[in-house]
Amino acid sequence: MAKPLLRVLNGESVWPPPIWLMRQAGRYLPEYRAIRAKAGSFLKLATTPELAAEITLQPVRRFGFDAAILFSDILIVPWALGHGLTFRDGEGPVMPPLRTAADLHALDSARLPAAAAPVYETVRRVSQALRSNHQSTTLIGFAGAPFTVACYMVEGGGSKDFAEVRRLAYTNPTLLAGLISLLTEATVTYLAAQIEAGAETVMLFDSWAGILPPSLFRTYVIQPTRQVITALAARLPACKTIAFPRLSGLMLGEYTATTGAACVGLDTSTDPHAACRLIPPSIALQGNLDPLALAAGGSALQSQTSAILDAMTNRLFIFNLGHGVVPETPPEHVARLVELVRAA
Amino acid sequence: MAKPLLRVLNGESVWPPPIWLMRQAGRYLPEYRAIRAKAGSFLKLATTPELAAEITLQPVRRFGFDAAILFSDILIVPWALGHGLTFRDGEGPVMPPLRTAADLHALDSARLPAAAAPVYETVRRVSQALRSNHQSTTLIGFAGAPFTVACYMVEGGGSKDFAEVRRLAYTNPTLLAGLISLLTEATVTYLAAQIEAGAETVMLFDSWAGILPPSLFRTYVIQPTRQVITALAARLPACKTIAFPRLSGLMLGEYTATTGAACVGLDTSTDPHAACRLIPPSIALQGNLDPLALAAGGSALQSQTSAILDAMTNRLFIFNLGHGVVPETPPEHVARLVELVRAA
Repeated sequence: MAKPLLRVLNGESVWPPPIWLMRQAGRYLPEYRAIRAKAGSFLKLATTPELAAEITLQPVRRFGFDAAILFSDILIVPWALGHGLTFRDGEGPVMPPLRTAADLHALDSARLPAAAAPVYETVRRVSQALRSNHQSTTLIGFAGAPFTVACYMVEGGGSKDFAEVRRLAYTNPTLLAGLISLLTEATVTYLAAQIEAGAETVMLFDSWAGILPPSLFRTYVIQPTRQVITALAARLPACKTIAFPRLSGLMLGEYTATTGAACVGLDTSTDPHAACRLIPPSIALQGNLDPLALAAGGSALQSQTSAILDAMTNRLFIFNLGHGVVPETPPEHVARLVELVRAA
Repeated sequence: MAKPLLRVLNGESVWPPPIWLMRQAGRYLPEYRAIRAKAGSFLKLATTPELAAEITLQPVRRFGFDAAILFSDILIVPWALGHGLTFRDGEGPVMPPLRTAADLHALDSARLPAAAAPVYETVRRVSQALRSNHQSTTLIGFAGAPFTVACYMVEGGGSKDFAEVRRLAYTNPTLLAGLISLLTEATVTYLAAQIEAGAETVMLFDSWAGILPPSLFRTYVIQPTRQVITALAARLPACKTIAFPRLSGLMLGEYTATTGAACVGLDTSTDPHAACRLIPPSIALQGNLDPLALAAGGSALQSQTSAILDAMTNRLFIFNLGHGVVPETPPEHVARLVELVRAA
């Protein structure tokens, strides 16, 4: 197996570590902005295979990253289940808030295969392009973790603290459990189809995992994540899962020990040394440069990058950010980062 | 020493544990809303001793809490240093963003004693009222921790992720260090004056401690917190500090071991069992019921409260929330919580 990222996921140390970045395809790239200006809406981009595949490949061509991550959005699953979704510029996603059993029953799993078909087609196109031109680049499929997707659906979009989903957890746990269960099943179907279309590994983004108290974290974050990973492993044993429980804090150890993830993404605030002590060496780590250090460049970029590389020597490790690339990031800072990591 | 909360801070186990709540004085109380409607602005309330003292005492009278916490705001310090501050309804605080050396030099420490005098007068009034009518209630003074105050000043108000302060940390560390140093000194002066006016312990709120990567967390959170606590202990040896590094995640152990806090506040997402393992038993813990479980009431309130009480038996412990009371909380749920804790 020649691809560096897959070697790490399969337990082989690779140094310098493979590198890719969350949101490596996006607004900081002029070639992305050019396509976006022509296509109009973000949703149009994400569901037009020709455009989404091109955008997925842009940063791989420019920077030679070790992974291409499907250009899409974590809210494609609820959208494919029939839940309304629009993206407003500068405001983020807006959806009808899901608050009742009727709202839940309106979701239709039977819609998923056809609605998500453009995503699978994007994966096929990228897979083919990588086979032709970037043979050492791993194709990563992804989905939002059920809890984080539920956060947006219940809230009706983004939020500072996603209070509504916690309110629902306390006042109508049956409804929230029903939603999480439906999303868990849909996520398995969705990721399995991506793998069948050519994704070589998948990542579960749980951006809001950290807003829950521990008992709810176990019920709504750990348990569905374990179910997704277990079901995928049963169907497609070769596929490893990268899981990213952002802001999970002191729950990170328990999460890692119980979900079955082959690799855990660390967020910006996690001390890499502490993570190394907490997580068994058989599980790969991924992360966790502050995206603002990348945007700043210069000595901040250099010292923050070195600190992470120093901590991760001798670990199964994939270099990444601790959160997505911010739009104002100069592309030349990204090139410099790749250079720094490759010189490790 | 008869006051339960002070006994805990001085290393004596007290069970059932003392209880008070962050934002126990505020919008969820009809008696607060009545005063607020008459007074007009929040800033007016916080800087009028007669009103602020009355508001501080309202929840103590209604619920018999073990502590009265000064009714004020963490942004009173920058305001007293001459930095503009307004509170807009529904939007939170708005300040001019501090971004340059000139902005920093415009802050004037000499203004602090006179500008903060109404706060000290509030403390005196509350202290006197407690001596007359609530002899077992501890008076807690407070300030924002330097880093969190700097977050608001640099951003120019609230923010989802306080990116500007991190940007400044990378691009102009001299400016940020200068601001933190000035705030550290002002915080010591401000808290010492509260103690001299009658506060029996002080709390440092570091609501945004968790947004920093580890190296910056050490520089801008741990170091100034240790400086404040050390300086206060030197001046006023009897006074213990409660520190609340919200979202500090895996950094909580290092924070606790190095800042000198007598008590550490746990945020909502922290597993009490994990905190007990991580933090030596000589340091008291405070927290950490989800404010939304309190707002929900019923069986959610009961089970979440029991879980915390069970974890904290045999610890130096003060019952509290993991974040402030939310405005929609029914006061009768607060009464029920006090009853549950007192029956432990």
